[in-house]
Amino acid sequence: MREYTILLDAKKMPDVWYNVLPDLPTPHAPVLHPGTQQPVGPDDLSPIFPMGLIEQEMSPEPEISIPGEVMDKYRLYRPTPLRRAWRLEEALQTPAKIYYKNESVTPSGSHKINTALAQAYYNKIEGVNSLSTETGAGQWGTALSIACAMFDMKCQVFMVRVSFEQKPYRKSMMEAYGASILPSPSDATEVGRKLREAYPNTTGSLGMAISEAVEVAVMSGGTTKYSLGSVLNHVCMHQTVIGQEAKLQMESVGDYPDVVIGCCGGGSNFAGIAFPFVQDKLKKGLDTDFIAVEPTACPTLTRGPYAYDFGDTGQLTPLIKQYTLGHNFMPPGIHAGGLRYHGVAATVAHLVKDGVMRAVALYQNPCFKASLTFAKCEGILPAPESAHAICAAMDEAVKCRESGEAKTILFNLSGHGHFDLSAYDAYLSGNMQDVALEEEALQKGLESIPQVNEPS
Amino acid sequence: MREYTILLDAKKMPDVWYNVLPDLPTPHAPVLHPGTQQPVGPDDLSPIFPMGLIEQEMSPEPEISIPGEVMDKYRLYRPTPLRRAWRLEEALQTPAKIYYKNESVTPSGSHKINTALAQAYYNKIEGVNSLSTETGAGQWGTALSIACAMFDMKCQVFMVRVSFEQKPYRKSMMEAYGASILPSPSDATEVGRKLREAYPNTTGSLGMAISEAVEVAVMSGGTTKYSLGSVLNHVCMHQTVIGQEAKLQMESVGDYPDVVIGCCGGGSNFAGIAFPFVQDKLKKGLDTDFIAVEPTACPTLTRGPYAYDFGDTGQLTPLIKQYTLGHNFMPPGIHAGGLRYHGVAATVAHLVKDGVMRAVALYQNPCFKASLTFAKCEGILPAPESAHAICAAMDEAVKCRESGEAKTILFNLSGHGHFDLSAYDAYLSGNMQDVALEEEALQKGLESIPQVNEPS
Repeated sequence: MREYTILLDAKKMPDVWYNVLPDLPTPHAPVLHPGTQQPVGPDDLSPIFPMGLIEQEMSPEPEISIPGEVMDKYRLYRPTPLRRAWRLEEALQTPAKIYYKNESVTPSGSHKINTALAQAYYNKIEGVNSLSTETGAGQWGTALSIACAMFDMKCQVFMVRVSFEQKPYRKSMMEAYGASILPSPSDATEVGRKLREAYPNTTGSLGMAISEAVEVAVMSGGTTKYSLGSVLNHVCMHQTVIGQEAKLQMESVGDYPDVVIGCCGGGSNFAGIAFPFVQDKLKKGLDTDFIAVEPTACPTLTRGPYAYDFGDTGQLTPLIKQYTLGHNFMPPGIHAGGLRYHGVAATVAHLVKDGVMRAVALYQNPCFKASLTFAKCEGILPAPESAHAICAAMDEAVKCRESGEAKTILFNLSGHGHFDLSAYDAYLSGNMQDVALEEEALQKGLESIPQVNEPS
Repeated sequence: MREYTILLDAKKMPDVWYNVLPDLPTPHAPVLHPGTQQPVGPDDLSPIFPMGLIEQEMSPEPEISIPGEVMDKYRLYRPTPLRRAWRLEEALQTPAKIYYKNESVTPSGSHKINTALAQAYYNKIEGVNSLSTETGAGQWGTALSIACAMFDMKCQVFMVRVSFEQKPYRKSMMEAYGASILPSPSDATEVGRKLREAYPNTTGSLGMAISEAVEVAVMSGGTTKYSLGSVLNHVCMHQTVIGQEAKLQMESVGDYPDVVIGCCGGGSNFAGIAFPFVQDKLKKGLDTDFIAVEPTACPTLTRGPYAYDFGDTGQLTPLIKQYTLGHNFMPPGIHAGGLRYHGVAATVAHLVKDGVMRAVALYQNPCFKASLTFAKCEGILPAPESAHAICAAMDEAVKCRESGEAKTILFNLSGHGHFDLSAYDAYLSGNMQDVALEEEALQKGLESIPQVNEPS
């Protein structure tokens, strides 16, 4: 009997988050204060984050216990299934084995809820009853809306204006859980008003929406804190339940991945699937290949310089050493909204710089094509972000067909595409543009194109 | 440790469908030919269905083996989780235990795919490479589109016009799997053209869409067969994997339901969760309470007469003994599109008539209210159809709070509401009307209101 779905006994669910910081092969570049340019301390971050999360952000501990109340919420939908893509393997006629972790079955429809629940919890126990945040495609806003509903908290979401207009049902879904949603940039914040003045026709960006949500927290005097859906170390860490579960599930069928793949915007879903296996690479010397997949329209890891930069357009966040296309970068309007971010998690950037992981950039049309092949084989319609991981996994599997290698490939299916049907419409009608940053830059007459990064 | 999610080992997945026909307590009324009014034989049905399904429709066997190829497809997403709604119980302060089977995690987002895969398979092995069908809310059309994609078959879906217009993304989703979609009534069929002439402003109905899909099959000369998403015995039977799994899962935690609840349109999801427990009631004399939940706007079981009627508006289907509001009945435009059907499965009707099961009718506003309470407790945003089951389950749990009884309640969460956000918008904005058939009838000056049915 073929095992299509590999479940994990609920009793074996990981009860710790894995922290990659102490395992990094070279010293980690500190986060700098935006004003003093000196390393930030916990007090610098306390206006926007609760102390519980600040401690995790900087923790030297390799493992952090997951609190019982968070575990109870995880148990509503975790462990998620690991699936062997037998039908996709057959369709590709590849000797490779393809596995994917199915995070699309969570209540929010993506992996994002893994950190949303943790963040809501740590705020709640410190007496914070209101969170502000940004969302692009809407996956993160939905996740935080659900988490806030579960912990009886208020939730204010700044939604990138283009998504707010294109995806009214994402807004409705967040509202169904009791959140309030504003299109960003909005008139509700000082930074929003300034951005609207500077860019009257802007469709918004994650960088702008972050600035607004941070301002709301800072100006609240402590009643509202800010919550970020990716990039930060504590966020990536919360997502490691994905990779830890996957490792146990693969072990139960006697397998271990040669290649681990995730799409990469801010980096948290990629970190989530990859870091528990990265630990093995660093500690046991395994030769696992880690591939972060980004869009050619926003090729942070493959084209951005490795440098200190802000996390937001309004320059309100600390400076983080990362690959970046610049905090003023306005990503082209591709359909994978969750991958339209100028920067990336410092930990992911660090591991790419050190050559432990690598990145590829893909055009969106082949990603949608791959996604529909996947849907027809496996049933699930993926989010456009996840389509990037699928496309890279299929590329690897095709390489195996050509080389005859029987590699074991694992990727993270970060979410479903139920709110992305307009994107599939565009693809099916042949109206989807393939955008690469270089071409965009040339068209706009910009003088420089960021250099290709090689592991240093 | 609280067990929130009760999984079933894939090896224990049921490999038979349960057929309630031989266990019915009184003789089953035969299906009649629409022309001769005599009982139909297999040959009468062969222009529209493959022989494999016709045999199942009339089978005297209590169990039918699930073919290996169908089991393999089921293994892509089954067994589905059973969940204990601890948080909902707490919110209701009820001593009752509430369990629900979560069919919202299937690739199609509802239980419908359980029969879609089986129907595609039985057509495929008889050389049929094209299926026609109807869809209301879009759950069934999506399921059959996926099943056809998996078996490399063509799929033609007639979508009730009002849903076609209100839910463009449902259409897009079916197209993503390769199906072709037409709004019904359409100009593509003779019956469609007649219906458009007779009712120029009609928004369509399931009864009309069925007529069109049946005509396509009949006129194809055997290359296309028709596929129905509910009502028929083979459809209800395919859904019994839900109840069989639920029984094993409840057994694994030492429980058995006192009350089994499902929403009821055509009856297949209700039959699916209920019939395996009905078997125990009939054979072991258990006192289980079975509640079919329908909308007040389309109260087939609670208000319709028990009589022979057509399954479709165009009078193309055989005559089925059922509760019915009349094949010309035009249901009011409520938001649970899947519950807007004039008739109901003959087996469900039979068991209600015999007093083995019962039915209640609920207004839609309290169902949406219940659904949002559920969403905030359990995370999942339910389909409006499933909201009816949730509301009835919560009503039962509240009765337990008042009586002090600690009943065990099981309901089927038949699908998610990701394509029903406009309905939630209407509810949240206070613009949702509560419609009862009686009021409608009175407003329209109709002379008669169907009588309330009591078990005979």
